[in-house]
Amino acid sequence: MEEYTAQRRVCIVGAGLVGALASVYFAQRGWHVDVFDTRPDPRVSQDSAHNQQRSINLAISTRGITALKQVGLGLAEEVLQAAIPMHGRMIHGLTGHQSSQAYGVFGQCINSFERKRLNISLLDAAESFSNVTMHFGYTLRACDLDQGAAKFEVRATGQEYVVTVDLIVGADGAYSTCRRQLMRRTRMDYSQTYISHDYCELTIPARQNEHGEQEYAMDPNHLHIWPRHTFMMIALPNKDRTFTCTLFMPKEQFEAIATPESLLAFYQTHFPDAIALIGRDQLTHGFFANPRGALMSVKCTPYHYQDKMVILGDAAHCMVPFYGQGMNCGFEDIQVLFRILDELQVTTTVPPPGQAKAVDSQWHSQMQRALDCYTRTRHRDAVAICDLAMYNYIEMRSSVVSWQYLFRKKLEDGLHKLFPSLIIPLYTMVSFTQIPYHKAIERHERQTRWLTRGLMGVGVVTTAALAALVRCYRK
Amino acid sequence: MEEYTAQRRVCIVGAGLVGALASVYFAQRGWHVDVFDTRPDPRVSQDSAHNQQRSINLAISTRGITALKQVGLGLAEEVLQAAIPMHGRMIHGLTGHQSSQAYGVFGQCINSFERKRLNISLLDAAESFSNVTMHFGYTLRACDLDQGAAKFEVRATGQEYVVTVDLIVGADGAYSTCRRQLMRRTRMDYSQTYISHDYCELTIPARQNEHGEQEYAMDPNHLHIWPRHTFMMIALPNKDRTFTCTLFMPKEQFEAIATPESLLAFYQTHFPDAIALIGRDQLTHGFFANPRGALMSVKCTPYHYQDKMVILGDAAHCMVPFYGQGMNCGFEDIQVLFRILDELQVTTTVPPPGQAKAVDSQWHSQMQRALDCYTRTRHRDAVAICDLAMYNYIEMRSSVVSWQYLFRKKLEDGLHKLFPSLIIPLYTMVSFTQIPYHKAIERHERQTRWLTRGLMGVGVVTTAALAALVRCYRK
Repeated sequence: MEEYTAQRRVCIVGAGLVGALASVYFAQRGWHVDVFDTRPDPRVSQDSAHNQQRSINLAISTRGITALKQVGLGLAEEVLQAAIPMHGRMIHGLTGHQSSQAYGVFGQCINSFERKRLNISLLDAAESFSNVTMHFGYTLRACDLDQGAAKFEVRATGQEYVVTVDLIVGADGAYSTCRRQLMRRTRMDYSQTYISHDYCELTIPARQNEHGEQEYAMDPNHLHIWPRHTFMMIALPNKDRTFTCTLFMPKEQFEAIATPESLLAFYQTHFPDAIALIGRDQLTHGFFANPRGALMSVKCTPYHYQDKMVILGDAAHCMVPFYGQGMNCGFEDIQVLFRILDELQVTTTVPPPGQAKAVDSQWHSQMQRALDCYTRTRHRDAVAICDLAMYNYIEMRSSVVSWQYLFRKKLEDGLHKLFPSLIIPLYTMVSFTQIPYHKAIERHERQTRWLTRGLMGVGVVTTAALAALVRCYRK
Repeated sequence: MEEYTAQRRVCIVGAGLVGALASVYFAQRGWHVDVFDTRPDPRVSQDSAHNQQRSINLAISTRGITALKQVGLGLAEEVLQAAIPMHGRMIHGLTGHQSSQAYGVFGQCINSFERKRLNISLLDAAESFSNVTMHFGYTLRACDLDQGAAKFEVRATGQEYVVTVDLIVGADGAYSTCRRQLMRRTRMDYSQTYISHDYCELTIPARQNEHGEQEYAMDPNHLHIWPRHTFMMIALPNKDRTFTCTLFMPKEQFEAIATPESLLAFYQTHFPDAIALIGRDQLTHGFFANPRGALMSVKCTPYHYQDKMVILGDAAHCMVPFYGQGMNCGFEDIQVLFRILDELQVTTTVPPPGQAKAVDSQWHSQMQRALDCYTRTRHRDAVAICDLAMYNYIEMRSSVVSWQYLFRKKLEDGLHKLFPSLIIPLYTMVSFTQIPYHKAIERHERQTRWLTRGLMGVGVVTTAALAALVRCYRK
């Protein structure tokens, strides 16, 4: 058999979580991979400026883990080793009372881990392939999509650097430059919406126990929530026994708190138990010094241009963080894309010069078909999870303490235990299965109809029985 | 009284219809006005490249006319003089049968006129003010919104030109650069949606009558529609006795017509009467040679940044053309903005050096209050008309021939005649009044409820009466 010399080339813009994992997938299939990021290499840089507006910890669940497992290399195991399992929500009442709500009836958990650490693992994994080259400090300036050319500015020198490739992958996040380039060449339906709430991160330090050891100040195996209806605070555990708290609140409410005194009064009223946990000084320092972030939701379609560009992760669908699915969905994007590429048998070798032309044009049309298919199948799922994430903010900050919610959760959890494949709670479908997001919503709606009818049926029968009983008694 | 020497400066980006009219409004209030446009001056240039994707004729109705009347200068009269009144829709059936549907029960009309001619009138009106300067061939490159600075590239020389002003007005159309600049500094909610239909313009030439005179080939006082459910063609009269036809159709359907034969077969099936009107050769030439446009709807908010920038017209709300309100709404934007500026008594003179600081900061906060108010009040109306325009496409291409639509139109028109201020048809409210768009929708929905209840009431009474009659008869 003839040995081919040249490989298809892909240029991945963005070396964050999704870009780094995508580079591993492409590398494993034999592509010649160049990864570019405007930021410095997180493995050598102490500069955390680029992390300022990003949450430092994330929760990985089934979709993310499955995408990691698929590459092998012990990546999934490494991540789970370094993560802290959270089996449920811990609801903090106004009196400091805590009550646990399990995420799944079979003890499933989501896993809190440090964003930077996973990023480094993924970059190391990518660089272990000889066909991957990383370029840090390169800012994308423009693309010539028809030529497959991407023009970067080298930040250190200001010089221009151009690569011409078979495929450009945009994994450059919520404010994606690739998406903007795509918008110029496609009729893109696009929407971005800011919610009226901002967020601010605070830290609950580890505390010393009686033996002088550092320990968690709260149960580490829960995601802690202080739901206060129109705003909330949450806390996720870190490996160093601290918690990262995030306060979500309307912008105006943040602005109304202008002094340490008013901050403490606010916490005294709404999160009294958190003052001791965070510490007065850290609370006031953190609240006024830490950056405040905005929360945006982005939907768009198509995700691709012909056979030349595709966008993945936050670049394609940026969601509010309330379902903990942003990264999981981004990782699943990669899985879905490669399932399609594999199914359509898109090869990675460039045909030898002799038979180049026909084979080449066939490759391009195959690649275009794959990307068409990707946009078509993935868009409805991305829209579904963006909507769910938006809805879940109401659930987290308010519904979790309503009796209707708790009643339905109990009922659905009970039925799920009895008929595991017939009735599956929405949260379980989203976090602990790979059921496509849009199908999970459809199924949830169907289940809601069944439950409503069932409950009404019970109501009718009970009423009839009671009426019969009353009649018997009267006679 | 002390004489002030300096005036507030405004820079208007875009010298199209909305930009040109806005410059007149600003000039009349004494602002120092600079208008910039990337295109050449339409009054001296034969270059129609910038018009390629724009419809050459438009319909002006009450909102647009009122905004023109407010400046005086005989502008409204001049426009109406040059326009052709259209009193209703002329529906073309498959057999060539034509039926007229009046727009208003009191003989109101919308007015077809040439875009370029109105643009020239407005530019002439603006330049008649000594405080207005026009700059053609200047492309906006960037804004420093905090400084109120706008940087242009002079197309002829490639040089940079910077102005620093009190207010930047973005009237630079659907693909607005100002809006993009605004997006970088505000948390803008933004959505753009392409409809699946493209459009293509064709011409119906004038015909010679028996006396050898040029005359209109169809009734000139109607907007002609060939509604074909999933697509349609319309025609608007021009002053030179031609009609401009626009064919709206799904992109795929356009692409499916690849040869003159298939085009003629298509017209033979769907628009048989139009073949003779347009002429076989002009039809095939026009269809394949004229550019095909996409149709996009854009909504966004806010429209302003502090006291420094505001966007108007298509830059702020781009709608599909099916309600004929795009320009009317843009003109009304200007009226609404100036009503607020006048109400808040935003002055246009710069305070003399002595008292500069305090007065100046007061001016800025007043201006910001005005722009805040503008975004708040105008956004819901812009959203309302964008939605109505989208809905009206279905009405124009399909509903106009359904009996339900015709029945309701007859009923509502009749009631409007009887009770002119109690029941007003939606089209009348939108096109022939200045009722804010969002209130027009609310009122339309209320009327729908009344009509439905009324009809049901009639139904109930009739049924009861019939039943009584039957009973009488049986006895």
